[in-house]
Order: sequence, then structure tokens, then C-alpha cells
Amino acid sequence: MTLGAIAYLSGGVGGARLLDGLAAELEPSQLTAIVNVGDDFDHLGLRICPDLDTVMYTLAGVADEARGWGLSTESFRALEMLGSYGADTWFQLGDRDLATHLMRSNALARGQRLTEVTAYLAKALGVGPRLLPASDAPLRTRIATRDAGVLDFQDWLVRRRAAPEVEAVRFEGSTRATEEVLAALEQADVVIVGPSNPYVSIDPILRLEGVRQRVQARPVVAVSPIVDGRAVKGPLARMIPALAGRPASAGAIASHYGGLLAGMVVEHGDERETSRQHPDLAVRGATTVMKSRGDRGALARAVLAFAAELSP
Amino acid sequence: MTLGAIAYLSGGVGGARLLDGLAAELEPSQLTAIVNVGDDFDHLGLRICPDLDTVMYTLAGVADEARGWGLSTESFRALEMLGSYGADTWFQLGDRDLATHLMRSNALARGQRLTEVTAYLAKALGVGPRLLPASDAPLRTRIATRDAGVLDFQDWLVRRRAAPEVEAVRFEGSTRATEEVLAALEQADVVIVGPSNPYVSIDPILRLEGVRQRVQARPVVAVSPIVDGRAVKGPLARMIPALAGRPASAGAIASHYGGLLAGMVVEHGDERETSRQHPDLAVRGATTVMKSRGDRGALARAVLAFAAELSP
Repeated sequence: MTLGAIAYLSGGVGGARLLDGLAAELEPSQLTAIVNVGDDFDHLGLRICPDLDTVMYTLAGVADEARGWGLSTESFRALEMLGSYGADTWFQLGDRDLATHLMRSNALARGQRLTEVTAYLAKALGVGPRLLPASDAPLRTRIATRDAGVLDFQDWLVRRRAAPEVEAVRFEGSTRATEEVLAALEQADVVIVGPSNPYVSIDPILRLEGVRQRVQARPVVAVSPIVDGRAVKGPLARMIPALAGRPASAGAIASHYGGLLAGMVVEHGDERETSRQHPDLAVRGATTVMKSRGDRGALARAVLAFAAELSP
Repeated sequence: MTLGAIAYLSGGVGGARLLDGLAAELEPSQLTAIVNVGDDFDHLGLRICPDLDTVMYTLAGVADEARGWGLSTESFRALEMLGSYGADTWFQLGDRDLATHLMRSNALARGQRLTEVTAYLAKALGVGPRLLPASDAPLRTRIATRDAGVLDFQDWLVRRRAAPEVEAVRFEGSTRATEEVLAALEQADVVIVGPSNPYVSIDPILRLEGVRQRVQARPVVAVSPIVDGRAVKGPLARMIPALAGRPASAGAIASHYGGLLAGMVVEHGDERETSRQHPDLAVRGATTVMKSRGDRGALARAVLAFAAELSP
């Protein structure tokens, strides 16, 4: 079938890049991204939403692609001055990035919903597809570690460079998706799960009331964030053995999502092992590591074709 | 007599420069600056205190002396990005300056008093003398204009470049000085009023409960912000005719302070006319226009010598 509306679940960098590819293939009105907010945190009185910002900057073409976070042509003069005041500087607040956090924090303080201010900022930057935070209320992913206790997600990931070994992932705060998220899932012909970390990027979305049930009612295609046993970015490859008790593989990702998936796109070469682990899952090979903008478009087309095949 | 403790009342640039000169002549423990907070305002969720910042940056040696506001080697990348989000950009928020506003706003949101966070920031920048905001609670100077209604001070001064003609100056908010301010005035051997705008920089301090009475009990020396009928900086020269119904002159400043003053330091050449207008006031001529750091020290020494002569 020809796909109409697509709901896309996303974390940060990997999810953002495939979304950028999808955006180039689809009409903006066809595509709604539902973005993880479990990484969000408050820092110096600012609400910082790393995944929403990465997605927004990537789609606006202003992301620093080489560094993998933040804005291109960024400077860090405010951060330097914050350091001379003795403030924490482990989170790299860029000068241009600060404008985003200021606009968002001020809007929230004035009573706007995160959904509203996200739409405002994305429109100002010329982003086409709709970007929806999974929840308007704060939802906080916390990492229970073997040796360092329970840590806030950014503390674990950025400040401690994901070094403390993970024992469990916990969620605190909001259990409610927004009305916009629930409506987007209901209207979707297919749900695509980006190549994001299932534990800390996708689970925080799926756990919200009514989300899993609505996702489950649609054909779901996930793109594996694990390539040949390794994570393209981030701590996922070490989290899978710790949390699932098995080696990292695309098959382990499929197992984590369980009955949710109609199909999974894996890196060329990972098809056979994934199918061996999941004989009933439709598996499609593609180049999932996106180094260039061309890679994004090619992966997007492969995912869309696969999703169309799997749709009734 | 030899002066022990000095309380100094200050607005922005002119007040800050003489204070810097005084700081070079005195032990830090001798000098307490009580700084106007009537210019303070909230912008994008940040508490901005222009006079406190000008005083702090000037004493720390990091002020942009040529521009007359903000920090040296400043950049404006956050502001540029704020502009692309459609935010108001008439207030020139520098990147480094933003760090000050973030630290302050976050501390206030966590329940610190403005007095406390000011002390913290000033110490971090290596400022010697004690800097006290006149009040911890918001106090807002408002400008009643002939044609543009009643305006917030920064709106009038910065956004509208002080163009709307002033009919009256009003104060809203706090009427309470801090305990630290009242104690500093009680312990002072002399009070020095900087070459600041009496209407919008010094009056907001003097009107706080208990301040005028404590100032009056000490020998008070003011430095005229009017030189040969002109203001060194800012809209003061146009405010005097509008508010006092007389031409701008050092004598008009002395009249405004009235019985408060034991003496006034005026620019060389303004002595005779000032004494003619105020036969009972001690008047001292000096170079009050401070172009160089040397000028600050020379004026400070002249003011201190004059104040010592006038002290019992």
C-alpha cells in the first residue's frame, strides 16, 4: 500500500538522522515525530531537552553533524564565564544553544506546554514535520548503577561518560503522553521506531499510558541501533549484556521490543543472525549507518518500502 | 579626620568609575557600595540588574569601558539566535553577560537573596569592596511620559532611547532596604553619593525606609553628574528641566538633594555658579569627568580629602 500518515519514535542522533531522511521523502503533513523526553533535565534554571533539540537542529540543518550534538558554528563563551563563576560546566551549553533553552524555559514558566513551545521553536527554525515531545510533564530516566547508586540520566551519560555499570533503568515522573501523541498514533498507518537506544530513548515513550497499546495496533517497523554487535553511538552495546543478559545484537533489540514489531531493518550482514534468532520476524537488510545525507535518504526509502510491504 | 568606613551610593557607569577609584585608595573593608536596583528587570525569565552588573564588572576590571556597558571582549551569538526565534533583542544580552544573569536568576529561584548572590558573583570576579543591592525585593522605577504613557525604565531608556519626554518618575515594589544596607549606613563615617542620576539612580535608594534618615545623620558628599550644564552620560540633562523646571546645572543637583548634603564636588569651572545658587553648601572643584583610570584615582582622592575636611 501507499503509506499515508507515519508516526516515528525517536531518541537523539541516530533517530534524528533517519527522521531527516524520511522528511526528505515525505510531505511534512505525513510525518509526526514523537520524541523522548526522559533525558530532559533542569540546569541553571533552564529546561534542557537534549533529544528534542538534536531532532530539531538536525531537521533544521543547523546541527553540528561531526560533533554529534548541539549547533553548528557554536561558541562557548557563556560556558567559559559560567566556569569562572564556579558553575558546573560538564554539560556543554553553547551560546547559540542557550537561546533555545532560554526561549523554552521562559515559555514553560509562562504556562505554555512543552508541546506548544516545541512547535514554536521548530517552526522558527523551518522544520517541516511535526515534532511532539512524548509528554508535557517532566519524565526522568534514572540509571541504577552497580557502584555509583541511582544517577540522573545526564549525570550518568555526560558527566560520568556512561562509565558506571548499569543495573536497571528507572523512570520517574510523568506517565501521561500528550493528547497530540495519542492522536498521532491513532491516525498513523505505520509506526517507525528509529535506530535509537530502546532502554533509554524508546522505552520512556512506550511506557506512557495508552502508547504501547496504540503502537501495537499498527504495523511497526524498527531500525536496529546495533550493527554487527556494536552500537553506532552511545552506551547501548554495554547496556544489552547488563540489562538483557545476552550479547549485543540486532536480535537482542528485536527481543526487547517483542511482539510489538512487524519487521526490523538491520545492517547488511546482520540479516541471517537476526532471522535465526527471530524466525517469525520480517527482516530487511540495509545500510543503517548514516554517514552522509545521501545515506539518510537511502535508509529512509528502504524503511518506507519495507513498511509499505508490511502494511495491510 | 581620617576616614574609616565609607558608604557609597551608586547607579551605573559614572558611579561605578568613581567607586573603582575609591577602591584603589581604600582597604576593601572600608568601602561598601549600595547600588540602585530600580533599573532591574526580568527578561526571558532572567533577572537583569544593570547597575549592579556595571559596578561589578567595572570593579573587576572586565567592563567594556569604551561601550559603557557590559563585558569586554563580549560576543552576541545567543542574542542573534534569540532574534531568529523572534525574541525581543532590544536589550543587548552578551554571551558572557548571560552567565551572570543565569547564575543570579538560578540562585534567586533557589531562594537566595539578591544580596547573597551578588556577594557570590562579586567574589568570584575578584571584587574587593562590598557590593550591596539597595533592596532584595524587586523595586521598579517607572517613567511617566508625556506622550507614551507610563513605561518600565529599561523600556524607556534602552528600547526607546529615552526619547519620550519625562513627566514624573515613579517607584513600584519594594520599600525596604536590606539589613546590610541599613547597617552599612549606620557604621559609615561618611556617605559619598556617586556622580549618578539623582532621579533614577539615587532616589530609588534614598526612598527606602530608614535610608534617608541614616544618610542624613552622616556627613554626605555628592559628586555632580552635571558638568557645565550637560550630563556626562544618559538622559539627566533633559530630565532636570522636565522634572525640576530649571536648567541643568550642578546647583540643580544640589537643590534636589537639599538638606542632605554637607558638600558637593563639581567640575572645575562650575564652583562659582554652584556656590552662588547654594551659598551655605561646601563646594569643591575637581576633574569629575573620568576618561582614564588615572582620572578615577584623582577624583577619588579629591573626594576623600574633601569628605575628611567636612567630617567632624
